[in-house]
Amino acid sequence: MLTADRLSLNTATVKEQWNLAQCIEGCARHGLGGISPWRDKLQEMGAEAAARAIRDAGIGVSGLCRGGWYTAEGRLTQAVIDDNRRAVDEAATIGADCLVMVVGGLAAGSRDLPGARALVEEGLASTLEHARACGVKVAIEPLHPMYAGDRACVSTLGQALDICDRLGAGIGAAVDVYHVWWDPAIEAQLARAGRERIMAFHICDWLVPTKDLLNDRGMMGDGVIDIPRLRAVAEAQGYDGLYEVEIFSDQDWWTRDPDEVLATIVKRGRSAC
Amino acid sequence: MLTADRLSLNTATVKEQWNLAQCIEGCARHGLGGISPWRDKLQEMGAEAAARAIRDAGIGVSGLCRGGWYTAEGRLTQAVIDDNRRAVDEAATIGADCLVMVVGGLAAGSRDLPGARALVEEGLASTLEHARACGVKVAIEPLHPMYAGDRACVSTLGQALDICDRLGAGIGAAVDVYHVWWDPAIEAQLARAGRERIMAFHICDWLVPTKDLLNDRGMMGDGVIDIPRLRAVAEAQGYDGLYEVEIFSDQDWWTRDPDEVLATIVKRGRSAC
Repeated sequence: MLTADRLSLNTATVKEQWNLAQCIEGCARHGLGGISPWRDKLQEMGAEAAARAIRDAGIGVSGLCRGGWYTAEGRLTQAVIDDNRRAVDEAATIGADCLVMVVGGLAAGSRDLPGARALVEEGLASTLEHARACGVKVAIEPLHPMYAGDRACVSTLGQALDICDRLGAGIGAAVDVYHVWWDPAIEAQLARAGRERIMAFHICDWLVPTKDLLNDRGMMGDGVIDIPRLRAVAEAQGYDGLYEVEIFSDQDWWTRDPDEVLATIVKRGRSAC
Repeated sequence: MLTADRLSLNTATVKEQWNLAQCIEGCARHGLGGISPWRDKLQEMGAEAAARAIRDAGIGVSGLCRGGWYTAEGRLTQAVIDDNRRAVDEAATIGADCLVMVVGGLAAGSRDLPGARALVEEGLASTLEHARACGVKVAIEPLHPMYAGDRACVSTLGQALDICDRLGAGIGAAVDVYHVWWDPAIEAQLARAGRERIMAFHICDWLVPTKDLLNDRGMMGDGVIDIPRLRAVAEAQGYDGLYEVEIFSDQDWWTRDPDEVLATIVKRGRSAC
């Protein structure tokens, strides 16, 4: 079980209902230990103002979502490099535990996965240089293989760690149970990652049936992911960070009273994690 | 490019339009090299009658779909063992190159993936014994990780080959590009499989966006899978079998004139494979 102070709210979970100021207040009201803003909400509020409000609320920042998207143009553009530099700066401003990277899939019309993966590694190397100078950790988020075409050509933790091995210090992984729960190698790869490279741990649930590839994630306990088992493997490596709740759910949780959503998160942290 | 005689029709591709007799005639009419029936269609026609019709049409049988489903009851029941024996017998009757196994996901209410995987291996061992006696090859089909909960807890070729390594001769894999194209280890695992254990090779395409987890597969060339690249890796191992076209598509291909579907398959075999 996870008590509320071990949980962090990824703002995507209530993206339709609350702005960032409301999310911060909501986390404080429900006793959550942290928050992880998306950049659109952060920029809307202003990173400095958000940093103050988060500090005043006395909560942590488990991550900033998200940098990456290196592949959209089929080459590494200055625009995408610059945008990732700004993401690093924003992560530094709010004191985020890491900058979460959704690396990008195939460019329009491309079928070249190996080419996309090479671009991603080049892009990450560029972002990492600035991130190291700013003291920001870069966390590659392997996405579920069903997003390999359009969102992330890094699909497994093992693949993410291969990249980390090549790029060196300051880069690790954001592990989201939704993306990795099916992986027969997940225990071995979490052990390989070790404490230092498990930079974030996201939770939600996989619903059966899943009705939409993107926006039908479940609340912890409503699906088939054995969250306690995966959590235990991470904690055996020394993981003691926050558990960040990120639920995309346009037919269910995004339609509810956000205070009900947060109360449910707190309850399910205790009963289903 | 693949000429028509290198292609096989998985009957699921026209399951809404044709019975098995019509599928066999359609394959002959369009010059396809083979067919792969689903068991419901085979049983409807009768395995002996189907075997005769297929022989008369002069086409091959790239597989029988499908055995497996070992996990549904949360334990290995005699009913499921017996049903898989019958599947082996049917495969022998029609001279199928292999019996394709969709191994099953989690039982209702279960979150125990390791337990499901153990059941699957026990079930496969049981089926394999009978299959060896009948001279039928057993082909594990790793399914896309998005089916790990409800259809197959074997999600990668590497995982399938680990099982094969433990079970010995007569068992290999059915490789479907739809399920494995995203896998960063696919080249290495196809090489590890070798000619003998690549028992079937299925083709279709991954659409972006994909609107449904089950029934929105694309025709070769309409999506993002680099079929020629994957095919080249298999052929480098000596693969010289048929390429079986299996498309689930309730909004598109299942609504079309099946002769148009087969003509398109033949055309795309030449242009997109």
